[in-house]
Amino acid sequence: MGMRFGLLGAGRIGTVHAAAVAGTAGAELVAVADAIPKAAEAIAKSHAAEVRSVDAIMNAKDIDAVLITTPTDMHADMIEQAARAGKAIFCEKPIDLSVDRVRRCLDVARAERAALMVGFNRRFDPNFKEVRARITAGVIGEVEMVSITSRDPSPPPATYVARSGGLFRDMTIHDFDMAAFLLGEDPVSVFAAASNLVDPAIGAAGDVDSASLVLTTKSGKIAQISNSRRATYGYDQRIEVHGSKGLVSAENVRATTVEVADANGYRRDPLLSFFMTRYTQAYANEIAAFVEALNAGRPMAPSGEDGLKALLMAEAAVKSLQERRVVEIVY
Amino acid sequence: MGMRFGLLGAGRIGTVHAAAVAGTAGAELVAVADAIPKAAEAIAKSHAAEVRSVDAIMNAKDIDAVLITTPTDMHADMIEQAARAGKAIFCEKPIDLSVDRVRRCLDVARAERAALMVGFNRRFDPNFKEVRARITAGVIGEVEMVSITSRDPSPPPATYVARSGGLFRDMTIHDFDMAAFLLGEDPVSVFAAASNLVDPAIGAAGDVDSASLVLTTKSGKIAQISNSRRATYGYDQRIEVHGSKGLVSAENVRATTVEVADANGYRRDPLLSFFMTRYTQAYANEIAAFVEALNAGRPMAPSGEDGLKALLMAEAAVKSLQERRVVEIVY
Amino acid sequence: MGMRFGLLGAGRIGTVHAAAVAGTAGAELVAVADAIPKAAEAIAKSHAAEVRSVDAIMNAKDIDAVLITTPTDMHADMIEQAARAGKAIFCEKPIDLSVDRVRRCLDVARAERAALMVGFNRRFDPNFKEVRARITAGVIGEVEMVSITSRDPSPPPATYVARSGGLFRDMTIHDFDMAAFLLGEDPVSVFAAASNLVDPAIGAAGDVDSASLVLTTKSGKIAQISNSRRATYGYDQRIEVHGSKGLVSAENVRATTVEVADANGYRRDPLLSFFMTRYTQAYANEIAAFVEALNAGRPMAPSGEDGLKALLMAEAAVKSLQERRVVEIVY
Amino acid sequence: MGMRFGLLGAGRIGTVHAAAVAGTAGAELVAVADAIPKAAEAIAKSHAAEVRSVDAIMNAKDIDAVLITTPTDMHADMIEQAARAGKAIFCEKPIDLSVDRVRRCLDVARAERAALMVGFNRRFDPNFKEVRARITAGVIGEVEMVSITSRDPSPPPATYVARSGGLFRDMTIHDFDMAAFLLGEDPVSVFAAASNLVDPAIGAAGDVDSASLVLTTKSGKIAQISNSRRATYGYDQRIEVHGSKGLVSAENVRATTVEVADANGYRRDPLLSFFMTRYTQAYANEIAAFVEALNAGRPMAPSGEDGLKALLMAEAAVKSLQERRVVEIVY
Repeated sequence: MGMRFGLLGAGRIGTVHAAAVAGTAGAELVAVADAIPKAAEAIAKSHAAEVRSVDAIMNAKDIDAVLITTPTDMHADMIEQAARAGKAIFCEKPIDLSVDRVRRCLDVARAERAALMVGFNRRFDPNFKEVRARITAGVIGEVEMVSITSRDPSPPPATYVARSGGLFRDMTIHDFDMAAFLLGEDPVSVFAAASNLVDPAIGAAGDVDSASLVLTTKSGKIAQISNSRRATYGYDQRIEVHGSKGLVSAENVRATTVEVADANGYRRDPLLSFFMTRYTQAYANEIAAFVEALNAGRPMAPSGEDGLKALLMAEAAVKSLQERRVVEIVY
Repeated sequence: MGMRFGLLGAGRIGTVHAAAVAGTAGAELVAVADAIPKAAEAIAKSHAAEVRSVDAIMNAKDIDAVLITTPTDMHADMIEQAARAGKAIFCEKPIDLSVDRVRRCLDVARAERAALMVGFNRRFDPNFKEVRARITAGVIGEVEMVSITSRDPSPPPATYVARSGGLFRDMTIHDFDMAAFLLGEDPVSVFAAASNLVDPAIGAAGDVDSASLVLTTKSGKIAQISNSRRATYGYDQRIEVHGSKGLVSAENVRATTVEVADANGYRRDPLLSFFMTRYTQAYANEIAAFVEALNAGRPMAPSGEDGLKALLMAEAAVKSLQERRVVEIVY
Repeated sequence: MGMRFGLLGAGRIGTVHAAAVAGTAGAELVAVADAIPKAAEAIAKSHAAEVRSVDAIMNAKDIDAVLITTPTDMHADMIEQAARAGKAIFCEKPIDLSVDRVRRCLDVARAERAALMVGFNRRFDPNFKEVRARITAGVIGEVEMVSITSRDPSPPPATYVARSGGLFRDMTIHDFDMAAFLLGEDPVSVFAAASNLVDPAIGAAGDVDSASLVLTTKSGKIAQISNSRRATYGYDQRIEVHGSKGLVSAENVRATTVEVADANGYRRDPLLSFFMTRYTQAYANEIAAFVEALNAGRPMAPSGEDGLKALLMAEAAVKSLQERRVVEIVY
Repeated sequence: MGMRFGLLGAGRIGTVHAAAVAGTAGAELVAVADAIPKAAEAIAKSHAAEVRSVDAIMNAKDIDAVLITTPTDMHADMIEQAARAGKAIFCEKPIDLSVDRVRRCLDVARAERAALMVGFNRRFDPNFKEVRARITAGVIGEVEMVSITSRDPSPPPATYVARSGGLFRDMTIHDFDMAAFLLGEDPVSVFAAASNLVDPAIGAAGDVDSASLVLTTKSGKIAQISNSRRATYGYDQRIEVHGSKGLVSAENVRATTVEVADANGYRRDPLLSFFMTRYTQAYANEIAAFVEALNAGRPMAPSGEDGLKALLMAEAAVKSLQERRVVEIVY
């Protein structure tokens, strides 16, 4: 019998993970919970699963693992409850916007020896994964500099911005994790420059929308991140890693290889503009990796600690922006 | 209730189509037949279907459509049987290697008003489909010249070659269909030049492995096809269409966007080297299109007649090679 | 003292070659002749050369080599005169539109042991030259198939078409030479399909403007050529050579590497649309190669014989189009 | 009569500029001076110029403009002398490594109303120039973020490093100027992170070799620069400018468009690895622009002030690295 999942949170991302479970050999979606019954029912119906309450899922004997895809402020409580109930846990990022809350949550998970994976899906993108594989294989020698370009197609509504924790905790957090993943060494300092150039509503909400960040490691490796809340040409997601022996890069992913040439030039389509389409394969690989690690008894990666690290980088970046200086990152 | 399928032939390509049915909303695999029970059982088990005999599937009330993926020499008989049994029919290409047999088979299908699609999967490749969509949208004006590059990664075993019908009927047949699909007008003449350069065993089997073909239409449009049974860099599948207003092309599809640069230069991986991996999406789209056309009561495309046309082009190409001249294609 | 040149013909291409001489170390333009004095004067002034008559240049003691860039119908006579005068000769392609005339002219040149280079400039394009160098170095193993895409940006005036000798003798002749250059073996047969799709005036002048040709060699190598008199996206000049070990290709050359991405997609400029801009470097390299071969006493390449070969291929292509069959090329 | 040049300094870069003058219509090299007579003679001979002393050139009536390509520590004195002598001045970057010295020098130039251009050649690279032209044309809307990747193929000798002024004054200074050029607004703050990763000898000489810098303007625009003293794949020179309406970028320039595909993948050559080859066209355009501005009576760009600005950015970057904080740039 395969691994049986309960889904907590039947929103957009919950739907994605439910499909990923359905597409993973040796995994099965058993139950779905959501405050909005219709949402839970829709997913349950698609995958021949049941609608249950959160508590019922947590306590169910026929469920091995939970997928936490509720709003962020419920993540930490749910992780703790699931850990205590002996479930394996996959939780969307971030664990919480408060570092203290995350630390306490991880203490519980650790005490319960819970298997916990945090949803930094980009690590599982076939392109970025392959970049990391090349690094590990020694193809570029020693990593020296990482460059991440990460731009959303269009700014989120101001209401979202207000409760998002700000650009660094909400969006850059993926890039912080990717930087650590590619550097192969934890960043120990961060510098952030940022502006409100894209949407005045974001500035009015006290946030920035355009940023450039520099991270350094103890051994002197450097990562730079370029963020924007808007890219007219689509969802811009690229990485480059420069090493002592060479450079490895992953370009943007395109829907087709079609190009049209005429009197106006050579033209390819804009990029995919939706993160779920861009990272479809990453979401599928992520759940497969979760199942595989669990079956093999291997430690989870990215772990809860990786989630904490990325949040600590975000905290330090916020401070750097305020104080206009390098801020040390203490883990 | 969705469309219920019976699969006739549980080999490699049958497995692909079974998975495509399973992944298509509103479609369901009910039964599988194969001369080798184990093969049928394997697919049946994966998709919660039953193993039945061919006749049982043909006569089943709970089956709406059959997928014919048996060896080629059984295709025509099965199409006729299925047509008489009132099933909708999806048949792998080619219908038969004999033009006469194909004509008789299509007569039966027509008499029974059977819905019949032939598996020219490349029409459903997202890239090639988009090329055609651009043409239809008028982006390049009038089509003037089509260029198809189609090379297999490595030659088939000589035993396969012997019963394949030869390069033009076995491999180029896909390109003949693609040429007609992109020209938007049936080719009326063909010229073929070909050699045995890749593998002496192919020559010993009386076949060629490297070819260049030119097709023309009544209005003067031209298509050229470049074939090889071997491409060291992978499965090379490209098209270009040159029109009065511009050029539209589809480049090869790659597994990742990763590139490594070092003292030896900039290097990307070889192409995918397996047709099933290269055309995964095409196979899925093909079944979805079959289901959609059937539900909508729309004519099938590619139809049985399209299958016949491609075979007639292949016949003419064989004659052209023998007689070293242009051969008219009479439909 | 360097090599001293006399230029015969001060038109557009004469201007290009005069500049190439000026830019070549060890070469110097001494005199210019043209039926239109102003044209000769303009070039002479730019390069501190003198205006002289054709005969004066032919008989001059201070001139080592002549560049023949007059209208085509004067080429053969001038080659003969220059050969008899003991000059080294660079002549623009074609030597003549009549095979007989070319043969007689080459007889004279041979008898006089004249050094004679024919202006197939594309062999000297840095990209195409490098493709050939890779082939020679064995990078792709045995050459099997050559693909040449060669399209002009826009059709010539009908008046030009009338006296051009037709598409194959005028435009494809470059591709015939390139095919032989890349195949490394003389083509022994040609097949041509062609239509009048671009400009009715070309058809009215008895010519075609869109063509696909297939050449084969004795050992079974195949070359295909795609021609059009119009490409809305610029001067399309690409080659691909497929061999037993791999593929080597040269893409179009672009004015800049600039790309713009916005809501309409990713866009690069159209190609250069003028042959002199596209092949600037080729024209310079060509003269340098001429000087170098002369100084080293090496045979000229492309030679007068190469000029004849390409013309013979064109003749055979004309016949193939008329007779709708493969035509043998006899050298 | 054209513009007559005197060249002061007959080293490597002097040779480049002498050739650029020779290739510029309406410009002529009249005299060359160098402490090493042989060096001066070599250039003089190539261009039919005379060897003279520095003072003779400065005071010559037949010289309109001087090219200062001596070692850096002589630049400022020579600018002043030339300005007082009424010559137009083209000076290689930097004017001096001391900000004070530069300021005094510019005071003299200003007082003498001398035309002074500083050799930030990259502004004249056809690709980067075109990027700027697109920005000016409004193609990408408001500039928001500039990304510059600038990496040398291999580290300079430690002896050079010692007297170079350090990475920021020696190498990044080009990128500072490019950032200002593309931002269209002077940077007001800089942050620099840097390490010694490439060559321990550089660290021993007190310098860094790998750096990431962030510049911001008053209106909130951001530029990031990635530098390394070594790139195994060649001289890496790329820019990207992200704006409110789109992105414009210039990729690296390659020697050819040749690509080889085989079982190891698709491979293009490494980049050009020598700055003079990479920027040949930029050096030519630069001198042409100098002559053109002088003839038209237009202000010089890049001006002496632009030279000062870039140096001030470098100074601030040095301070930022030392103090680990953002440093304001005061002009």
